[in-house]
Formats: sequence, C-alpha cells, structure tokens
Amino acid sequence: MEIKLIVVGKTKRTELSKLIDEYIKRINFYCRFKIIEINSAKSKKISEEEIKKVEGDNILKNLNKNDILILLDERGKSYGSRKFSEFISSKTQTNKNLIFVIGGAFGFSNSIYEKSNDLVSLSSMTFSHQIIRLFFTEQLYRAFTIINNHPYHND
Amino acid sequence: MEIKLIVVGKTKRTELSKLIDEYIKRINFYCRFKIIEINSAKSKKISEEEIKKVEGDNILKNLNKNDILILLDERGKSYGSRKFSEFISSKTQTNKNLIFVIGGAFGFSNSIYEKSNDLVSLSSMTFSHQIIRLFFTEQLYRAFTIINNHPYHND
Repeated sequence: MEIKLIVVGKTKRTELSKLIDEYIKRINFYCRFKIIEINSAKSKKISEEEIKKVEGDNILKNLNKNDILILLDERGKSYGSRKFSEFISSKTQTNKNLIFVIGGAFGFSNSIYEKSNDLVSLSSMTFSHQIIRLFFTEQLYRAFTIINNHPYHND
Repeated sequence: MEIKLIVVGKTKRTELSKLIDEYIKRINFYCRFKIIEINSAKSKKISEEEIKKVEGDNILKNLNKNDILILLDERGKSYGSRKFSEFISSKTQTNKNLIFVIGGAFGFSNSIYEKSNDLVSLSSMTFSHQIIRLFFTEQLYRAFTIINNHPYHND
C-alpha cells in the first residue's frame, strides 16, 4: 500500500522543495509516499480543454486498475484535520494505493473527474499550484501523527 | 493605511522566510505590509491559560486605538479567494490599519477575542503555525492582484 501525490509541473522553488521533502521523509516513517511530477501541457498553441486532456492522459498513465483516485479540488468535501486523518485511515485499510492529484492551471479534464473516487477540498481559497503541494504534504503528515497518536497536532 | 500580520514566535526555517519575504515584497507594491513576530510565552512552568494571556498582552501592545483586529481562527468565516479580496478591499477603504493575527500554539486569550473585529478561517484544517504564515501572505498577495485586475488568480 502506497500513497502518491501527482502534481502537474515541476516544483520551481528550491526552498519549497526542501520544505516538502522534509514532510515526505517524515510521512515515510508511517507509510510509503512519493510525489510524481508530470509535465504541464500549458501552451499558447492549444486550448484550455486540450491542455486538460493532455495532462489528464498523463495522470491516467500513472494509475493502476485498483488505485483509489482522489482529486484535490475546491468543489470537494472539506475536512478538519482530525476528520481528514479518519478519511486517510479508512482509505488505507482497503490496502489499495491512494493517488491524490493536484490539477494543472486549468483544472481537471472530464475523464479524470469520471475516474475519481473522491474529491477533497483543502480550503475554500485558491492557492498557487506550487504552494498547495506543501499544504497537502503537511496535512498528510499531520493525519499520520493523529492516526498514530504522536504529539504534533493540537486541536 | 497599513496591513500587519502579527505572529507568535520566529519563523524558524530560512526556506520558509525566503518564500514569505517574496510575497511581502510583492504585496508592498500594492499596500504597506509587514510581519511582526512577538515572543512565544510557551513554557512548561506556566499554564496554557497563562501562556495565552502573556502572548495576548504582547499582541495588544502592537495595536493602536483605531486598528481593525482580525484573528486568523478556524472558527472564523471562510472565504473563497475572490470573496476574501472583497473583504480586504472593503476593509482598506476605512483607511484604518488592518491587523491580522496568527495565534500561538494554544490559540488566543479571551481578551484578544473580545477586542477582535473579525475572525477569518483560511481552512477547516489545522496547519502548522509556521506554514500558515506563507498561506496567509500568498492569499493576501492574491487578494491585491484580484482587486487590481492583475493576472495571477484563475477562478
């Protein structure tokens, strides 16, 4: 069982990468976790719909048949940290891989929405696609500390 | 008119400081903005209530009579980015200073809640007191780009 976070485009700032890498290391104490960067298809030559389709196809290439696909989407369900840890805990018990995805600049293609099992919203605010990576990894780490009763989270 | 963000304790990671400093610079293109770090009173020798009181007193020392005090608090109102930009826009029109505060490890004292004009929630999730500084400054920058029709935010 493994958790992956698929993101569109490279993490541009080394400062951000360093902060994220620290949480990746800490999460791996509890569960195998890695970030997969797929190429952004952003281009002035093709339409937003086409960009979403190309990126969607690249996301699908990283999925296996039984994986659980969870989109980080502002239309998704919002959780408090404790509820999110319960969500993670219940999903990991299925023993299937959990694949979270942060969409590209224009969001997800319809085919990705159709394949998804859940939508989760981290905030009703929109954050940069770069920063949201840190946001998610910190929250995933927090979820595992809650599940394992480690003193990191204060309600 | 000036916006300040008061935080409890220093920003520990230089990577985080660098990312935050970049947004501070960009926000100052639109409005005077700075972060004020007050000392954390966290100690095993005094109770949580006493810690909140000491930190609360230090926060109050940084306030002037006409300032608008807005606490970043998970019980606060949550906004989408566009609504948050309207909130900022309406508040800045009063020409009073806006003071946002991120609480310490145990939250705010009652005297701070009593003095506050608004509570704003960035997310229903709890984030580290360190990382939330980056979230807020990015969101404040985003608000000013929306107010000024600069191409940063995509709905």
